[in-house]
Amino acid sequence: MIAGIIGATGYAGAELVRLLSGHPKIEKLILSSVSFEGERIEDVYPSFLGRISSPLLKAEDVIAYSDMKVVFSALPHAVGEPFAAACMEKGINFIDLSADFRFDDDENTYTAWYGKNYQFPQLHKTSIYGLPELNRELLKDASANGAVVIGNPGCYPTGASLGVFPPLFKNMVCPNAPIIVDAVSGTSGGGREPSRSFHYCECADSVAPYKVASHRHSPEIARNLSVMACRAGAASPSVIFTPHLAPMNRGILSTIYIPLSEKCRVTQESVSVLPPSKAIEEKMREIRELYADFYKNEPFVRVLPEGVYASTNRVRQSNYCDISVSVDINGTTLIIASAIDNMIKGAAGQAVQNMNIIFDFDETLGLEMIPMLF
Amino acid sequence: MIAGIIGATGYAGAELVRLLSGHPKIEKLILSSVSFEGERIEDVYPSFLGRISSPLLKAEDVIAYSDMKVVFSALPHAVGEPFAAACMEKGINFIDLSADFRFDDDENTYTAWYGKNYQFPQLHKTSIYGLPELNRELLKDASANGAVVIGNPGCYPTGASLGVFPPLFKNMVCPNAPIIVDAVSGTSGGGREPSRSFHYCECADSVAPYKVASHRHSPEIARNLSVMACRAGAASPSVIFTPHLAPMNRGILSTIYIPLSEKCRVTQESVSVLPPSKAIEEKMREIRELYADFYKNEPFVRVLPEGVYASTNRVRQSNYCDISVSVDINGTTLIIASAIDNMIKGAAGQAVQNMNIIFDFDETLGLEMIPMLF
Amino acid sequence: MIAGIIGATGYAGAELVRLLSGHPKIEKLILSSVSFEGERIEDVYPSFLGRISSPLLKAEDVIAYSDMKVVFSALPHAVGEPFAAACMEKGINFIDLSADFRFDDDENTYTAWYGKNYQFPQLHKTSIYGLPELNRELLKDASANGAVVIGNPGCYPTGASLGVFPPLFKNMVCPNAPIIVDAVSGTSGGGREPSRSFHYCECADSVAPYKVASHRHSPEIARNLSVMACRAGAASPSVIFTPHLAPMNRGILSTIYIPLSEKCRVTQESVSVLPPSKAIEEKMREIRELYADFYKNEPFVRVLPEGVYASTNRVRQSNYCDISVSVDINGTTLIIASAIDNMIKGAAGQAVQNMNIIFDFDETLGLEMIPMLF
Amino acid sequence: MIAGIIGATGYAGAELVRLLSGHPKIEKLILSSVSFEGERIEDVYPSFLGRISSPLLKAEDVIAYSDMKVVFSALPHAVGEPFAAACMEKGINFIDLSADFRFDDDENTYTAWYGKNYQFPQLHKTSIYGLPELNRELLKDASANGAVVIGNPGCYPTGASLGVFPPLFKNMVCPNAPIIVDAVSGTSGGGREPSRSFHYCECADSVAPYKVASHRHSPEIARNLSVMACRAGAASPSVIFTPHLAPMNRGILSTIYIPLSEKCRVTQESVSVLPPSKAIEEKMREIRELYADFYKNEPFVRVLPEGVYASTNRVRQSNYCDISVSVDINGTTLIIASAIDNMIKGAAGQAVQNMNIIFDFDETLGLEMIPMLF
Repeated sequence: MIAGIIGATGYAGAELVRLLSGHPKIEKLILSSVSFEGERIEDVYPSFLGRISSPLLKAEDVIAYSDMKVVFSALPHAVGEPFAAACMEKGINFIDLSADFRFDDDENTYTAWYGKNYQFPQLHKTSIYGLPELNRELLKDASANGAVVIGNPGCYPTGASLGVFPPLFKNMVCPNAPIIVDAVSGTSGGGREPSRSFHYCECADSVAPYKVASHRHSPEIARNLSVMACRAGAASPSVIFTPHLAPMNRGILSTIYIPLSEKCRVTQESVSVLPPSKAIEEKMREIRELYADFYKNEPFVRVLPEGVYASTNRVRQSNYCDISVSVDINGTTLIIASAIDNMIKGAAGQAVQNMNIIFDFDETLGLEMIPMLF
Repeated sequence: MIAGIIGATGYAGAELVRLLSGHPKIEKLILSSVSFEGERIEDVYPSFLGRISSPLLKAEDVIAYSDMKVVFSALPHAVGEPFAAACMEKGINFIDLSADFRFDDDENTYTAWYGKNYQFPQLHKTSIYGLPELNRELLKDASANGAVVIGNPGCYPTGASLGVFPPLFKNMVCPNAPIIVDAVSGTSGGGREPSRSFHYCECADSVAPYKVASHRHSPEIARNLSVMACRAGAASPSVIFTPHLAPMNRGILSTIYIPLSEKCRVTQESVSVLPPSKAIEEKMREIRELYADFYKNEPFVRVLPEGVYASTNRVRQSNYCDISVSVDINGTTLIIASAIDNMIKGAAGQAVQNMNIIFDFDETLGLEMIPMLF
Repeated sequence: MIAGIIGATGYAGAELVRLLSGHPKIEKLILSSVSFEGERIEDVYPSFLGRISSPLLKAEDVIAYSDMKVVFSALPHAVGEPFAAACMEKGINFIDLSADFRFDDDENTYTAWYGKNYQFPQLHKTSIYGLPELNRELLKDASANGAVVIGNPGCYPTGASLGVFPPLFKNMVCPNAPIIVDAVSGTSGGGREPSRSFHYCECADSVAPYKVASHRHSPEIARNLSVMACRAGAASPSVIFTPHLAPMNRGILSTIYIPLSEKCRVTQESVSVLPPSKAIEEKMREIRELYADFYKNEPFVRVLPEGVYASTNRVRQSNYCDISVSVDINGTTLIIASAIDNMIKGAAGQAVQNMNIIFDFDETLGLEMIPMLF
Repeated sequence: MIAGIIGATGYAGAELVRLLSGHPKIEKLILSSVSFEGERIEDVYPSFLGRISSPLLKAEDVIAYSDMKVVFSALPHAVGEPFAAACMEKGINFIDLSADFRFDDDENTYTAWYGKNYQFPQLHKTSIYGLPELNRELLKDASANGAVVIGNPGCYPTGASLGVFPPLFKNMVCPNAPIIVDAVSGTSGGGREPSRSFHYCECADSVAPYKVASHRHSPEIARNLSVMACRAGAASPSVIFTPHLAPMNRGILSTIYIPLSEKCRVTQESVSVLPPSKAIEEKMREIRELYADFYKNEPFVRVLPEGVYASTNRVRQSNYCDISVSVDINGTTLIIASAIDNMIKGAAGQAVQNMNIIFDFDETLGLEMIPMLF
């Protein structure tokens, strides 16, 4: 099968190149780059030397390539829509790693956060948000009827949403208090373009929040939780999301505080400042099992056993989302930690997973990487 | 003045050596170490070569040293009490960096978390918890009457408590929801003893939580907030505390979620997924001013201006606690970030600050370090 | 095919587990561990959760396993010989990642550096030093006649030797001056056992040499160069080797200074302090081509084009050795940089490569990983 | 005393601000910045909040400031000469951190490497290269007669030169072989301006050489060694210099290979591959003493005792240059490691040291910082 990547020289694009070049169903990979048109991908990324020397074309030439079946777009926000439209016309699947197709037909929210209007509104009526654990069936059904446009999820929303879905679906979440997502990301999330925030000396050996209460992934997380709550017949929860930057290349660790509905809490006489009671520990096990059950058929979600916390280095270079489950001392709040590799499950890997789904390949094809040990 | 440090070769002890050796009031520094007795401090820490070559004695010899005025203890928990007692007998001030004197006479909580009973219960009746921003007057009053035992605060409780005090004191906190402290620490918090958790390959390029809902600093944070709430005539808030480890040497970043009481919230019609409104931004400014006002006389707390978030590298190697103030999109929750250098304001620097207070020195003496730039 | 790994829970052993579990010819992997006997590998390395749950047996049980074809030993030095002997008796190939079989029958050198005598001297008469670029034919020939013992090269000697072979083989090296190997390693080279040297705070954000003029890999490098010099009919060069530790998980960068023989130098009138002349640049290209030609059939050595220097992050997680070629301003000395992933080409990957060779598999099988981008 | 800094917002400039703001002789600090003119230094560096809020003026205004005594220039190369000239006219000392005044009247070398001609050639006839360990007397003498222009040394040349001076001065270096300086720098050496080379993901967790045989500090090192050789009546040695980038904020570790002249070698019968002999160890001690003796009056050079190697984290945040001395196994070559903080002894600290010298202050004033422990 022939696949194309437009915007192949950004970090997400190049990671797609790396993953797809080892995918057993991909025979040929056609690439484009605005910044490096005319060069070869191995010139831009010497890691690829001797392995991937594809020339970098124009985006138009990728789409026009004979027998093209799927185009991945790793372009920035608000520039890819015309390519999506062109692909639809030619019956080519379009998997977009930007935010453009993450809000379906809710143009208002998209515009409020990204400052642009939809250029091809009709595309957003049939596009699908490609979080397989939420929308696998939608993806399968739609692709049965022809080419689809997929909005590949943001990195933070992937880890955050997977951490919240089970209790939300089980109607265990208190409706009157916010769900808090406190997340820490590695620097590759900032992309390949140099800037002061990602200048080595400015971010090494330091942790800090950024865009507090104003990050564009907030509405995407809220939307995902809302969709799942709706499926459970519950009200949309409110969400507080705080991103942080940590001195690491890859990985997102989301620590998520989910207020339990009254009936799900551990009843205690008074506010405790003592170590967790037996009742708390039992509740922890019960909810951990609930998570394990919820994800039992998911190939890329691992609910961790007791005593093991989600850690970004244990999913590095894999498509896994690891989840650990705890309950606070007072039994009122779930403390969930979820870890992903932001470049894989948070971007390129999930895009490949979406491709596998719509082409009815084994979902793990090309994504079998075992996490590195360090 | 002559000062002593027992347990001088652990990280906190050695940092005390470094700070006190530059303190203008300290003429002589007498050191002890169990592990390196008989050696010199510069043999254990070659950073000190040519600068500090004090021999490492027995703890007893430090206390017995002629004209000793203050002894800092950087021993592990549950071994320093006898030395505190010996100091009291001789009229020597005792500043303890372990947890032993952080709970006053609440032996139950101490025992529940640290697994030990008090050996000298009477000492805990007069010992003072040495968080200057909370207890400066107590420290001054007590020291006016003779030698005191000071329980130097834990690193996490320092950053967390300072981040919560102002709205707590102003009775702005909702009593029915927990305050959430999500904190990230550098590895020096784990001390000098090698272990797998702090083995380079195991923690580099990775972030993970640890001791979720079961860290010993939880009750200390709860206690501090309770004391402040009590001063405001409010109920003790419940606290959820989650520590994380990040790949950096120094620093603690605490991101704190404080639910506002109903009267302090920004009223909105419905749950918002839009960027912060003007009303939210105004509220932010209002509360930032409240913080600035609360700390206006504190030499080591900096409330950051709009657009600047607390970052561990901006307090590195200084005794500052930096605090940034935000409000969530829905106007229900404060999002406070506080940053300290865990070895300075979180340990050795705060101990020196306490010494300055009880000896009526200028509180910033020996602590004038401007944070490093990187 | 069934393969075994004894010492599977050290870093090199676990990396072997990871690589072999994805090798298309390996149907079953049998593991042992002294420290974790009775547990499962995924308990020791949660990265493996849901993927590799093999139980950890005794070494004896690995060797006794029915139809075992090859045993990899990742045990420490001086404990694996009896297992090698047992394997030979049963006709099982033995690939040893320790230093025990790296010196053939030169017991003196081994003993001088490792403090032990050979236990089974006859094994060392037929064992082969498994650097494929040096000994591929020996490996093939020996394995044609039955099971073999392979001494898998040390990490430093791999990168250093590959950097020096071409000019040595071409008789271009000045015999009267030492070859200098200045190498920087990531911390995984120190293994999994915690120690002060590899305690995060002690090695983060710092670079330092260690074991200067006294590292055990010195004689192994010298030996390799001697073997190659001998093939070229030249005298054994003397070697100076200085290892350094840098704050990274993986990778070895060797910068190698090779004095050119008089006839190969660029002749200049006097000592230059000016930027490189045209003559120097031509010489650089000429020697770069010589390197490229020397390694043209090697699947895992990449001679880098002009303007690209060897960098450890461009070989990370791959079996490549990248080599860049420069000439000093005065035209007297080659400045070669070689980069490997110390855990892959420097240990586990090279062991798999050796297995591929002796079983006559495609040499790249299971080692196709493209280096990560970051 | 009033001091000025032009170019105060680059890394070296800001580090000067930090150091000088704590210098007991400096009453007032006047700053300029091209990029941030009109702002305050604490807006550009929030680390300075509440401590240093000086406005950023034009360079001209700094020089014109009433009673200005010394101006530090941290401008890029080739733009500061007119300011030096203006200072000379007004009798203001000028300490230049760029390369412009590092080559005295050897304009050819400067031009060959920096691509510019001297604008005020006469200034270079009296300017002094400010490496105190080389030129302290020159600095003192010149400043006795009025204001001086000082070329503050480059970071690499500082560490490299100090590592080579003693045997050079003692005529122990073999004239026929190059001295090799293999150095590793932290990223702050690249300055504050974002670029791909210093983008976090591109340099974290990786080591690589750069500008091999073509770095601008090569001729400066060569020049320094030549000056010292000349004092010893010896020929100028040739130098090979290879810089590397390592994932750390600060620090330069130079590993230096110095070929001993025949009379100074340890005589051995043949090339050794055995561990160091007693004779080698004795030679090591002898030469270590020679170094210690050479630097016995230097306040900022520490010759390390046996068994301690120079390490960048042991000089971090101090003005020290640490030097460790070893001899290779064959007794032909010195292996010297020198470590400095590139921002302090390699830039701002050395500039302050130069100021102290020319104003006849205690040379350590404002530079008493004990290295951080981690």
